[in-house]
Amino acid sequence: MSQSLEAYLDQHQDHHLSALFECLRYPSVSTDPARSADVTACASHIAELMKTIGLDAVEILPTAGHPSVYAEWCHHPDRPTVLFYGHYDVQPEEPVEGWESPAFEPTIKDGQIIARGVSDDKGQVYCHLMALKAFLETTGELPVNVKVLIEGEEEVGSPHLPPLIESEKDRLAADVLLISDTPMYSADQPSLCLSLRGLVYFQVQLTTANTDLHSGQHGGAAPNAIQSLVELLSTLKDDQGRIQIPGFYDDILPLDPRIETALDQLAFDDAAYMRHYEFLALSGEVGQGTLSRRWYRPTCDLNGIWGGYMGEGTKTVIPAQAFAKLSCRLVQGQDPHKICNMMTQYLEKMCPDTAEISVTVYHGKGAAVGTDPSHPAVAAALQAIESVRGIQPVIQGEGGSIPVVEHFQSVLGLDPILMGLNLPDDKIHAPNEQFSLDNYFNGIKIAAQFYLNLSQQAVTDSNATND
Amino acid sequence: MSQSLEAYLDQHQDHHLSALFECLRYPSVSTDPARSADVTACASHIAELMKTIGLDAVEILPTAGHPSVYAEWCHHPDRPTVLFYGHYDVQPEEPVEGWESPAFEPTIKDGQIIARGVSDDKGQVYCHLMALKAFLETTGELPVNVKVLIEGEEEVGSPHLPPLIESEKDRLAADVLLISDTPMYSADQPSLCLSLRGLVYFQVQLTTANTDLHSGQHGGAAPNAIQSLVELLSTLKDDQGRIQIPGFYDDILPLDPRIETALDQLAFDDAAYMRHYEFLALSGEVGQGTLSRRWYRPTCDLNGIWGGYMGEGTKTVIPAQAFAKLSCRLVQGQDPHKICNMMTQYLEKMCPDTAEISVTVYHGKGAAVGTDPSHPAVAAALQAIESVRGIQPVIQGEGGSIPVVEHFQSVLGLDPILMGLNLPDDKIHAPNEQFSLDNYFNGIKIAAQFYLNLSQQAVTDSNATND
Repeated sequence: MSQSLEAYLDQHQDHHLSALFECLRYPSVSTDPARSADVTACASHIAELMKTIGLDAVEILPTAGHPSVYAEWCHHPDRPTVLFYGHYDVQPEEPVEGWESPAFEPTIKDGQIIARGVSDDKGQVYCHLMALKAFLETTGELPVNVKVLIEGEEEVGSPHLPPLIESEKDRLAADVLLISDTPMYSADQPSLCLSLRGLVYFQVQLTTANTDLHSGQHGGAAPNAIQSLVELLSTLKDDQGRIQIPGFYDDILPLDPRIETALDQLAFDDAAYMRHYEFLALSGEVGQGTLSRRWYRPTCDLNGIWGGYMGEGTKTVIPAQAFAKLSCRLVQGQDPHKICNMMTQYLEKMCPDTAEISVTVYHGKGAAVGTDPSHPAVAAALQAIESVRGIQPVIQGEGGSIPVVEHFQSVLGLDPILMGLNLPDDKIHAPNEQFSLDNYFNGIKIAAQFYLNLSQQAVTDSNATND
Repeated sequence: MSQSLEAYLDQHQDHHLSALFECLRYPSVSTDPARSADVTACASHIAELMKTIGLDAVEILPTAGHPSVYAEWCHHPDRPTVLFYGHYDVQPEEPVEGWESPAFEPTIKDGQIIARGVSDDKGQVYCHLMALKAFLETTGELPVNVKVLIEGEEEVGSPHLPPLIESEKDRLAADVLLISDTPMYSADQPSLCLSLRGLVYFQVQLTTANTDLHSGQHGGAAPNAIQSLVELLSTLKDDQGRIQIPGFYDDILPLDPRIETALDQLAFDDAAYMRHYEFLALSGEVGQGTLSRRWYRPTCDLNGIWGGYMGEGTKTVIPAQAFAKLSCRLVQGQDPHKICNMMTQYLEKMCPDTAEISVTVYHGKGAAVGTDPSHPAVAAALQAIESVRGIQPVIQGEGGSIPVVEHFQSVLGLDPILMGLNLPDDKIHAPNEQFSLDNYFNGIKIAAQFYLNLSQQAVTDSNATND
């Protein structure tokens, strides 16, 4: 980073704070119909800011729900284009009594900015907007082409974003998808996340009779739907935690050696993890480390089960029906449709002969996403983090799924760079959500450095090609 | 039966009907506080009837709930004493719209008396009361000593009967407990029931963490309470349907050869049973016939299960807790307390190391009860049924539990004779409850013949002793 840019960023911290505070004052709670106008006002505020900064083609894109805000700056036909995605909507402030200061009146306490949405995701969005502003104010241009899409329904599951991505496919075309909406590994260990697991989700219904029966009159002869369900579900894993569906692991791509190295570096503390959640034992595949099992191995979890009598006291019923919900997290290489078929066939095959089975596959979920560690944007991001923080960041995975990211990848072919700028304990979705001043100001510098690095790579690559 | 008694009974059918109808008109619904006065009025009506008949010591015994009605006739110190138990309370008439005629306005249609409570249990109670009336009107005495206890809370689980049995222990002393509150085997196959299974009931709670967790962030490492529960419950039985708790079957008494013979006689139709309930397969211990499994073998049934997300759609949760309710039907020889300990120890031992287990034992349930087929009252009952019906009755079991019967047996030492006078499809607890005219009038004769047989046995025994 040039001395002049760094000096500019250091001198404008007050402005960067006041700009963020203005945005944090909008109670843009997407799930609350009573705050619909606040959500829209927040979108307009961000659109105005984008215009003031000097971004082009600023537009509020309406959806069937809350709008997205779009802007771009694309004046380097020979350089890469970054699509930056974030969200301006926030979680409700409930429980209100948990807040030490009002959720929508940002304050600073012990080096932390405290407000609803400051980490998730307004503060992280502003790291990028302030970096772009700095370039445009100091040089009149951006180092690379940038497209910005800030949506207003992330906290309600982005129901209207997939059709918007489809319909705005051409406008959103880019080389890399940049997101700052996940935390870094820890305060002392910055990280870059390059993968998300996929998800397939099922409901199973077993029926053993046309009516519930009296366990006295029929017990010992009548089939019991819960018994059948328990027998069926107990076949899903062996005693080594391995999923027993034939072929389940076949298509998994081998882990990149750089990712394996990163895993070794992290030396996850199983004992502390167990103490924190009061686990008696960890679960999962024998022979795989905990972080590997959480980020890079597929799972099969029972998410819900019900049947028979669930009230107080006793009821001597033999239930005719029993139900379960279960889901698999998928990793790179696994095809969700293939896994859905495998699971359905396995459950049907293993179902005891006492029961009729019906398997429902929930759609709208999908494949794992991942970015090759050799993608040029990865080096740009790692170097940006290291240069600002002075600590070598590690590559990490994320065990969860962000369906919208899979949509960006499948529709636009974009590899995601998940550049987390906040911390795991920043209380997102909870009272006293926070984002430290250090992480905010460093985040602006990391964002700026990332765009610079990417442009320098482009220049280097271009020179190399010309040689 | 003497010709004069038989003639009397045939001539008084209209009176027997009108007497029963008067009782059926009381909406003595014990579960409905709004009908509390009707319940009490029904008790008074029966007490008045008992006095009119000529029974002694008629008394309405108050309880903390609805009262019981007691009467006796004990003027044969050298003859056996029968304690007849029944109930005058009934189920609610709901769903009201299901009734073709008002539930509490008895009518006769196609040879059936139709009214709430006519089979369960007022009609069967009146078989006995009308038989006693016939003796007292025609001979001025009863053939044996009889005590009658008609309670008002059977349909709500007889909560206040056990303390009443305890406190009235001396007054209720008898040689045999006679109950007509279960159906005979079928219209073409009269039967006498000599056993009930016992019941022990448990709730299991498994805890794997101090909070539910996100299946993406923690899936593959965090233990899952439903998974642990499914693994645990799947160990309860082997693939032959045998319960795996060590020692569970050890104390079971061998089946009486007469009961085995009766089972062979019944030639139960498995295929029809399966068609009726649309079972795909029967359940239970391999190598045991269906009736044997329903009446004379112990069971372990899962009565309820719940945990995690049970709503519409998907929620990607790893549940920290999961629950199940399960119960065992017990047979003669099995000690409920011993079985409760065995079950608790087994569940604790087999619980996966991922989970903390808590087992709740529900009390107030108990041991199986049974009467030796060589008990003199059994022969008296079998002969009474055969002489009236002209068909040889079989001895049957009942798979359910009537806790009050176990209480009569454990407190008063009474062997139960379950002399079912109605049919399995008489729609008890449902709209259009029925009791056929034939079964009512035959029931009065069977009851009368039973008391006669018992007195003749006594005379014979007494003569034998004098020889």
